[in-house]
Amino acid sequence: MQTWQGLLQGYRDWLPITEKTPNLTLCEGNTPLIYSDRLSDRVGANVYFKYEGLNPTGSFKDRGMVLAVAKALEEGSKAVICASTGNTSASAAAYAARSGIPSLIVIPHGYVALGKLAQALIYGARVLAIRGNFDQALEFVRRSAEHLPVTVVNSINPYRLEGQQTAAFEICDALSEAPDRLCIPVGNAGNISAYWKGFKAYYSKQKTSSLPKMCGFEAEGAAALVKGQAIPHPETFATAIRIGNPASAHLAMQAVNESGGTIDFVTDDEIRSAYQLIASEGVFAEPASAASVAGLLKLHEGGRISRDETIVCVLTGNGLKDPDSAVKTSAVEPLVIDADEAQVTMALERML
Amino acid sequence: MQTWQGLLQGYRDWLPITEKTPNLTLCEGNTPLIYSDRLSDRVGANVYFKYEGLNPTGSFKDRGMVLAVAKALEEGSKAVICASTGNTSASAAAYAARSGIPSLIVIPHGYVALGKLAQALIYGARVLAIRGNFDQALEFVRRSAEHLPVTVVNSINPYRLEGQQTAAFEICDALSEAPDRLCIPVGNAGNISAYWKGFKAYYSKQKTSSLPKMCGFEAEGAAALVKGQAIPHPETFATAIRIGNPASAHLAMQAVNESGGTIDFVTDDEIRSAYQLIASEGVFAEPASAASVAGLLKLHEGGRISRDETIVCVLTGNGLKDPDSAVKTSAVEPLVIDADEAQVTMALERML
Repeated sequence: MQTWQGLLQGYRDWLPITEKTPNLTLCEGNTPLIYSDRLSDRVGANVYFKYEGLNPTGSFKDRGMVLAVAKALEEGSKAVICASTGNTSASAAAYAARSGIPSLIVIPHGYVALGKLAQALIYGARVLAIRGNFDQALEFVRRSAEHLPVTVVNSINPYRLEGQQTAAFEICDALSEAPDRLCIPVGNAGNISAYWKGFKAYYSKQKTSSLPKMCGFEAEGAAALVKGQAIPHPETFATAIRIGNPASAHLAMQAVNESGGTIDFVTDDEIRSAYQLIASEGVFAEPASAASVAGLLKLHEGGRISRDETIVCVLTGNGLKDPDSAVKTSAVEPLVIDADEAQVTMALERML
Repeated sequence: MQTWQGLLQGYRDWLPITEKTPNLTLCEGNTPLIYSDRLSDRVGANVYFKYEGLNPTGSFKDRGMVLAVAKALEEGSKAVICASTGNTSASAAAYAARSGIPSLIVIPHGYVALGKLAQALIYGARVLAIRGNFDQALEFVRRSAEHLPVTVVNSINPYRLEGQQTAAFEICDALSEAPDRLCIPVGNAGNISAYWKGFKAYYSKQKTSSLPKMCGFEAEGAAALVKGQAIPHPETFATAIRIGNPASAHLAMQAVNESGGTIDFVTDDEIRSAYQLIASEGVFAEPASAASVAGLLKLHEGGRISRDETIVCVLTGNGLKDPDSAVKTSAVEPLVIDADEAQVTMALERML
């Protein structure tokens, strides 16, 4: 067992890396592929979780960010900048910190609780709040690169998707073949596009002999791709995919269509129930992650899963990112009794 | 690159595993060893972080728990039980969930905010709150195994330390040798004991040619080993090591003495400052984890670090476990300005 040295070294030949690209890493990638006994039984197939929550900052974003920040350094940037309040800003801040350059985060003033930014802040991000909305914040971020020596690491940065391909490589490496089907949450639609690119890259170099059906699942209240139009006010419990106007809509639909897959939505109740189901097998994922499993169950109920398929459900982030959802979802009152041995033994016996 | 299959498979020959031990895993272990440029520069040595926060439940406890629960299954137990409100209960609940058996948690009624238990609860733990104190809860847990088919997975379970040895193995495997010095937080004193056992096991089988100096660091307000007596009311910001009467005190002192290491305490201010220092390199650890780095800096200031030593600082848990500390520690108000391009550009320029 060789020690894992991170994505830029582990998948060097598959990424746009030059001799001048610094070997930046926080040991991202190499995340677990965990067999799910119960889901496999339930749908009559071989189901795995790709648990991206064990990336350094707790989400899949680290795969693209490590490459985006490394290329920024290679190109002489003095800072990275993004408009984000969630996983993207946390990841950008961590890799900027690791590189010794500042990370700048632009947010709309008054719309974001500072607690959401705690992770980015502890890594040292510098935050600018503008009196405007999120779209304006993003627009200022885009334009900033015209005036300042900074690199935008929002999803318009092309290296993000290049880096995110590596999750597909890891799945194929672990299974020694591509899975038959990939189930994946869809928010901004970049990740499904990146996986597809990765599966196709491996296939075209004969590393695998087949391609998976790409099955993307949006939250019902943010189902822009399913409905074929932007959702002005997206709403869902799964905050990480609460996106009404996916940046990579076109690429995502191409992945679904080329692969013979499907795009569908799942309800918040289905997501919540899948969130608990995943935890009940010992894997704690962010609510948005559960859209992949909720989607698989919906496909199964529709009779669309074949016997003995190999299926990978992508769990995009760590449940520890969102402790409030865990508290709300699992709110059970403990049984309270006196400190008396007979009573305690009886109570414990009943709990078995 | 072979895919990591977890500790029971990865270190099978080094653990008390039989043919009947189930191959339980959530892909624990195989955690990053991250070189710290800045700490290395500052102390004039080669300093690494062993980042245990990327274990499945976010702490080093998973290493011992996977073995403890696997052995419980092997021995026919119907449940696991512990008195804990933190990392131990989270880990026990996850592996019990994975195994399909209940996890029972006994806590003193009224002393524990339910939020602290959120992680264990989402994994499906069943909680009994007794009208008594923590020591009574632990005593009931110990006695429960006399009456019921349950296995206690508190630190009295001997497989916990056996499993925790694997972190020492991984460090030696990654460095192709033992480090010169290990810096590690000390709370219940089990982890330092387990690492020492692991380093000695590798040394005795000629996997390494030397042994590290074991340097353990308690929080000042919970420094039972340093002061040589139990602390009735331990207090520290680093809650995971707020323990006044370490269960493995004897083994820990043996590790320190046999290895020519040191046991010392660090102040909450030193821990807080180290917590930020670690994050400023892109690694987000629990406050208690930072005791190892605070301790290294204290040794350095005392002139006790030699040039070019190889030093590993153990970061025991993920910072996402304790978002409140991150919010409090990094509480900076963002700069607020109007949505005007010239102003935004000027503000960003000043932030570079």
